Amino acid sequence: MAIDFWYEFASTYSYPAAMRIDRLAAAAGIDVRWRPFLLGPMLAQQNLTDSPFNVFPVKGRYMWRDLERICAAEGLPFRRPSQFPRRTLLPARVATVAANEGWCPEFSRAVYDANFARDRDIGDPAVIADILAGLGRDPAAVLAAAQAQPIKDQLKAAVDEAMGLGVFGAPSVTAAGELFWGNDRLEQALAWAKRA
Amino acid sequence: MAIDFWYEFASTYSYPAAMRIDRLAAAAGIDVRWRPFLLGPMLAQQNLTDSPFNVFPVKGRYMWRDLERICAAEGLPFRRPSQFPRRTLLPARVATVAANEGWCPEFSRAVYDANFARDRDIGDPAVIADILAGLGRDPAAVLAAAQAQPIKDQLKAAVDEAMGLGVFGAPSVTAAGELFWGNDRLEQALAWAKRA
Repeated sequence: MAIDFWYEFASTYSYPAAMRIDRLAAAAGIDVRWRPFLLGPMLAQQNLTDSPFNVFPVKGRYMWRDLERICAAEGLPFRRPSQFPRRTLLPARVATVAANEGWCPEFSRAVYDANFARDRDIGDPAVIADILAGLGRDPAAVLAAAQAQPIKDQLKAAVDEAMGLGVFGAPSVTAAGELFWGNDRLEQALAWAKRA
Repeated sequence: MAIDFWYEFASTYSYPAAMRIDRLAAAAGIDVRWRPFLLGPMLAQQNLTDSPFNVFPVKGRYMWRDLERICAAEGLPFRRPSQFPRRTLLPARVATVAANEGWCPEFSRAVYDANFARDRDIGDPAVIADILAGLGRDPAAVLAAAQAQPIKDQLKAAVDEAMGLGVFGAPSVTAAGELFWGNDRLEQALAWAKRA
């Protein structure tokens, strides 16, 4: 049994989801396919050119406080990023490389930690290189692979696949033909996968 | 200890919330103040003139399926309303009367049941009269009270109060100075109220 976990590095609620999905899935005996994608094309579909949390300040104020409460309850460090949303094309491409090579979860968790616990600019190649080095990877080799055409195409195809599955926000889980949206639907998604 | 439960009769996720809030709150030893309000002014603040679930069809498709799953898990009957969203000014005014007189929860649950389980037009005075009669109330007397100026003013003041508290969607709970949004935050809101 396996689920697809769709996430975008700028997405705030994807942070706690990324930090707990593997633990929850392991407890349920379900495999997780980490599926990095980009939310921009989905927002464009909704005629948004910025995060809805910036477009609607009243929702944004609520979200930051809600996220703070969720992180506190989960025991996750949290520092509100000084820039939101951050550019995520580069880390999404590196995560695509990582998914092909089998080290996507640890890389992705490190990127979320950098963005939401350490206020680091995850759009900056130097920050990504630093994260890669910390994971024992060769930054120059990985960054070169991430910018090559096959990876660009693969990430684009992932965005198209997500849209085809009805994904419109992050995090999302697709499990046995069903779509679940939000950090607060991980448990239901896993229960669905288990029942299917 | 008490919380404020803010709800709008057209709001889909307010349906399961309204059906379970009293049970959850009783188990936690917390009182619930039922606070009917209107979502229209909040949506207008976000430049929306229709439900976001209609404005963004991809979100709407997800929401209806998600709601169906939630109702199934809760053992709640569900039939997708043939009209969405329905006019809710009249039931919101009647609920305001009911809140003053101490029968708001049962009236509100009956309105949600009519809208989301029986596909009845809750904007129709005849449907509201029918619900009132079923609760042993005098429909003509209640409808007259609901359309009188003091109740109109009271409902308008409730909308202003909600906006002042940062409410932007329904259902919402305000508890000990904190705002919680969504059927999936009821448990956290009650835990917060209990801790405060």
